[in-house]
Amino acid sequence: MRKTVVGVMGPGDKAPQSAIDSAFELGKLIAKEDWILLSGGRKQGAMGAVNDGAKSENGTTVGIIPTKGNENTSDSVEIAIITDIGSARNNINVLSSDALIIIADGMGAGTVSEAALALKAKKHIIMLSVDNVVKSFFQEIGKGSVSFAKSPQDAITLVKKIL
Amino acid sequence: MRKTVVGVMGPGDKAPQSAIDSAFELGKLIAKEDWILLSGGRKQGAMGAVNDGAKSENGTTVGIIPTKGNENTSDSVEIAIITDIGSARNNINVLSSDALIIIADGMGAGTVSEAALALKAKKHIIMLSVDNVVKSFFQEIGKGSVSFAKSPQDAITLVKKIL
Amino acid sequence: MRKTVVGVMGPGDKAPQSAIDSAFELGKLIAKEDWILLSGGRKQGAMGAVNDGAKSENGTTVGIIPTKGNENTSDSVEIAIITDIGSARNNINVLSSDALIIIADGMGAGTVSEAALALKAKKHIIMLSVDNVVKSFFQEIGKGSVSFAKSPQDAITLVKKIL
Amino acid sequence: MRKTVVGVMGPGDKAPQSAIDSAFELGKLIAKEDWILLSGGRKQGAMGAVNDGAKSENGTTVGIIPTKGNENTSDSVEIAIITDIGSARNNINVLSSDALIIIADGMGAGTVSEAALALKAKKHIIMLSVDNVVKSFFQEIGKGSVSFAKSPQDAITLVKKIL
Repeated sequence: MRKTVVGVMGPGDKAPQSAIDSAFELGKLIAKEDWILLSGGRKQGAMGAVNDGAKSENGTTVGIIPTKGNENTSDSVEIAIITDIGSARNNINVLSSDALIIIADGMGAGTVSEAALALKAKKHIIMLSVDNVVKSFFQEIGKGSVSFAKSPQDAITLVKKIL
Repeated sequence: MRKTVVGVMGPGDKAPQSAIDSAFELGKLIAKEDWILLSGGRKQGAMGAVNDGAKSENGTTVGIIPTKGNENTSDSVEIAIITDIGSARNNINVLSSDALIIIADGMGAGTVSEAALALKAKKHIIMLSVDNVVKSFFQEIGKGSVSFAKSPQDAITLVKKIL
Repeated sequence: MRKTVVGVMGPGDKAPQSAIDSAFELGKLIAKEDWILLSGGRKQGAMGAVNDGAKSENGTTVGIIPTKGNENTSDSVEIAIITDIGSARNNINVLSSDALIIIADGMGAGTVSEAALALKAKKHIIMLSVDNVVKSFFQEIGKGSVSFAKSPQDAITLVKKIL
Repeated sequence: MRKTVVGVMGPGDKAPQSAIDSAFELGKLIAKEDWILLSGGRKQGAMGAVNDGAKSENGTTVGIIPTKGNENTSDSVEIAIITDIGSARNNINVLSSDALIIIADGMGAGTVSEAALALKAKKHIIMLSVDNVVKSFFQEIGKGSVSFAKSPQDAITLVKKIL
């Protein structure tokens, strides 16, 4: 039986504290729902925090690793998928997720690429903590396939509508 | 001796006529400079038109093809690189280009992903025909690594500053 | 805490019954050891059987899927990593496995590529059910990085030496 | 108009002189036929030599580069396709080649993976300088899709039968 996989994407190195807090909370909530957490797997910023959150609730965590080894993988990633395909792995992140939450707070170019690749693959995305500029852009590009969540809990409610 | 490769990315199926016209003109100008044109290689929209423009000036055209075969490759692509990696090939498009022009007119999610992947790889991008929403977004995300061109000729002038 | 991932590669569509039986047995033994089973994830032949075996012992099963969807994924794959990168995903299979078992019985070209990519990545491989031609070849190519197992149980014993 | 692309794969770092000589000769012959030479693009061994040979006859040379930059790319590669997907790029090498010549002299695991991925993609391959072990193996695996060439000139003759 296939398990439900929820992907969370967000800022790495330069993540603001608010993004890290949201990520940790999302990880917890995803684990409580018994969903598999999928992320880019690195230890920095929101990626590390979402895995830490999920592990704090004994969740199952999958990391899609861009490099050839685990030097930079979060210790909270249980199952590391080593791709060695760099940023091309962003497309695997989005294709493998039954639902996708994008933390837009401190949004970097890598996260933008994941949101865009998801839309390209005709996936609905849930964006958390957008500012007005980001919101206007994704409303224009997303054409109805983007929801905007007000909180981690709200994002989980939106995920349930997608699944 | 390595040749200079200029990538042009833009809308496919639903490209407006203005994007197609810009793409054709860009292809011509790139060929006249004796640069190699690199694109996503498909026959639709701006991708097809930029290759047609380059061929009209006897340019060399390289297409990075997402599928396993050439069913959908523009006839104006001389050298088809068959990747069979779907949208993950967008990262190859940006990494292989010494300079990158993004046609933002009718911008779809695939083109957004290419702009974002380029910025993630610390590449400068040149955007043509942005509206205010797209411009504000890429000014926020791009942090100085995005130039905005007013015309195909202006884009070529900006390419020369990067090379 | 990272979990141990054991990859099993083998023939798909044209798998002989002996390869299917070995695969099922390997899946069971891997699950009993509490290792994660990783495979190419498709439902055919040895790939399907190894997942069925692991599920029969309530193991955790990860499939690295070559296509853009799960049309052809084994029902016994719990966590499906959708790559859409075709046979290029074979390199992800080998890089993500802490130990790698190759079922050589009815060996097809895809499985050969996985064995070769593993050796290229300086991984040790364990081959099961080789004939003389296959054995001679991998002794020549593998230069000490290939072990030959006599049975599924023997393969598991060899895995323990690698981990 | 699509140009004809002939791929040459062979040993890198530890290439014997005989493989390097064959590669250089193949590069010359491919350029004389006005075919595009495609290779893995690195400067070492047969990869470097085949590009040098093609350039000595003013051929067009395309390199499919596994890394994120050109640090290790042969100077004789004119058009560098930067993939950053590591050994997964081997599948692009084989898919993009209208005909494929494998230099088996000093054959390493990377070259084996390319031969196998080609057969998996239902491509015919031409092998040069096989020993008995390699020949027996590919006769068993290749099932009629492998030709064995006696010399670079003979390989070119076989390419013409495929095109």
